[in-house]
Amino acid sequence: MDFILEHTDATTGARAGRLCTPHGDVETPAFAPVGTQGAIKALIPSLVAETGTRLVLGNTYHLTVRPGEAVVRALGGLHAFMGWDGPILTDSGGFQVFSLARLATLSDDGVRFRSHVDGAECFLSPERVVAIQETLGSDVMMCLDECVPFPCERDRAEQAVRRTLDWAERSLAAHTNEMALFAIVQGSTYPDLRIKCAQALAKRPFDGYAIGGVSVGEGPLLMDEAVACTAPELPEHKPRYLMGVGPPDDLLAAVARGVDLFDCVMPTRNARGACAFTWRGKVRLRNAVHADCSRPLDDACACRACRSFSRGALRHLFAAGEMAAAILVSLHNLTFYQDLMRRARQAILADRFEPFRADTLAVMAE
Amino acid sequence: MDFILEHTDATTGARAGRLCTPHGDVETPAFAPVGTQGAIKALIPSLVAETGTRLVLGNTYHLTVRPGEAVVRALGGLHAFMGWDGPILTDSGGFQVFSLARLATLSDDGVRFRSHVDGAECFLSPERVVAIQETLGSDVMMCLDECVPFPCERDRAEQAVRRTLDWAERSLAAHTNEMALFAIVQGSTYPDLRIKCAQALAKRPFDGYAIGGVSVGEGPLLMDEAVACTAPELPEHKPRYLMGVGPPDDLLAAVARGVDLFDCVMPTRNARGACAFTWRGKVRLRNAVHADCSRPLDDACACRACRSFSRGALRHLFAAGEMAAAILVSLHNLTFYQDLMRRARQAILADRFEPFRADTLAVMAE
Repeated sequence: MDFILEHTDATTGARAGRLCTPHGDVETPAFAPVGTQGAIKALIPSLVAETGTRLVLGNTYHLTVRPGEAVVRALGGLHAFMGWDGPILTDSGGFQVFSLARLATLSDDGVRFRSHVDGAECFLSPERVVAIQETLGSDVMMCLDECVPFPCERDRAEQAVRRTLDWAERSLAAHTNEMALFAIVQGSTYPDLRIKCAQALAKRPFDGYAIGGVSVGEGPLLMDEAVACTAPELPEHKPRYLMGVGPPDDLLAAVARGVDLFDCVMPTRNARGACAFTWRGKVRLRNAVHADCSRPLDDACACRACRSFSRGALRHLFAAGEMAAAILVSLHNLTFYQDLMRRARQAILADRFEPFRADTLAVMAE
Repeated sequence: MDFILEHTDATTGARAGRLCTPHGDVETPAFAPVGTQGAIKALIPSLVAETGTRLVLGNTYHLTVRPGEAVVRALGGLHAFMGWDGPILTDSGGFQVFSLARLATLSDDGVRFRSHVDGAECFLSPERVVAIQETLGSDVMMCLDECVPFPCERDRAEQAVRRTLDWAERSLAAHTNEMALFAIVQGSTYPDLRIKCAQALAKRPFDGYAIGGVSVGEGPLLMDEAVACTAPELPEHKPRYLMGVGPPDDLLAAVARGVDLFDCVMPTRNARGACAFTWRGKVRLRNAVHADCSRPLDDACACRACRSFSRGALRHLFAAGEMAAAILVSLHNLTFYQDLMRRARQAILADRFEPFRADTLAVMAE
């Protein structure tokens, strides 16, 4: 994998780049929708591609628990399994073990847990997480890390950083294929721990660096602080990935700090809850005001939902419990996220990211 | 609306024709998927179009109950509301009133009932049903009919035929626009009643004729008998529509009797239940035998699900509760139904419908 840093905005840290993978290039800043169990929720690959999406995420934890990486390999690898021939990034499973699995017990070796699906006992170590992702055939793999909750005592955050660094080193040693391996910076809300972790990882030959342990309830200010102190410590010519983020304003804030990649369930999850993102702010389709509204979700959007459906029709489809509602609004929300990234990139290339960001957020907040 | 009878098979009653509507032509025999509440379940219009579907059905009962035809009109009419610019047929609501509504009370005037959504009292008369469909903007409208259950005493079936004929006449008188109006033949499983009803309706200037009151539990033999005695009584140059049917073998049996149009929830409902129709018979994806099967649902199918997904992957998506499973198999099943109609049409045009039907059913039953 190559990362080409094409341009850095003149007045912010915002970067335009290009991630080159065996399954195609991804222009950055880029947003990856989450295909937790091998599918982006409420969509199929052709619809995902329609939104402008190039990179998608798969969850290592979910896929190893069900159907298991051996089955995915027998079915042709993760790209064939998902019906997606573009780039795929897989996370490490660490976050899910801590949030979903039962009876997770952590040691320096790894983490032992029971599957949330059938209670089967499982074990993830740094080596095993790399092996699973190599078996899946991910274009971009993540190291197993220790993700701590918020708030977190300093002692615990320090221990998690130590373990994350140790596991990153073991992941490097376990890595046998040509696919990219990213390390993850931890450190909770302690800037000095974040910096120490980033500096240590930056010395090692990872293909990219993620900022993890954010979006766990710390709020936008502490998240921005974590990003602000971490990003400058990371190698300039490697991609930077903020994990699990987020709402449009958080994305633009992180882009300004020099982050290149994002993933989040927000566009698809909100869609299923009848909440649409638009360039004029959120539209809550359950609101009765939309019942006989013949306008599209967003006049400025060219997605299929906006071209063919009124707000009133979409509201009806939610009220009637039709899957088409979730499909259409997922399509729209993901198109909005991709348009946001594309416009951000254009603004960066034109050295006007800050006015773009300010104007965009001002109109959205109207 | 015009119907052009292009060819009648040399050895069966099977017909190839063309239904010409203000929203485009439909080659027959044709299958219409059911968009009960303004959407084909688990699909969006662009995916429906991918299957080769030209004609879709909307349910008058459901749409008048929610969101109401006035809302549909305010949102641009049924085509805009559904995001479907091809032909739309709407049923009369009669079948749903008897099967879904609460406290339905029937009189010669019409039927009074309470909505299954909110219990609101509603009234459907032949005149009102035509007015609703004109407000919706359907290309093909159906007359309100009285649909009797199976089995049905002869007295009740006779009364239902009388009422259906009276209501058809009132529908003709109430019809004010240029869209097509079809009458419905009733008569339960009494051939003489079916014939009497068909003969009476055939004398009147309807744009097409439906065979109703089938697929209510009478089984394929009695259904075939009803079709066999009714079809010959209908005008040769008007389209014939068998309502609510059905599995592939029933479709082919009815095509052989000279039926041109069909609608049924079967392809989409079965899809949501993880059951796929293929040219080699049904595939039940919950079956463990498919878990690591890397073959597509159907080697002979060019749909997106068959091009991009293995049976194993589809099975996993069902097991994981992913909407993508229902979307993909609905896309496949509807493609199968449209391919079946297209191949039937080609066989009719080549005067070889009977061998086509026999071969198709033999391979499916293997």
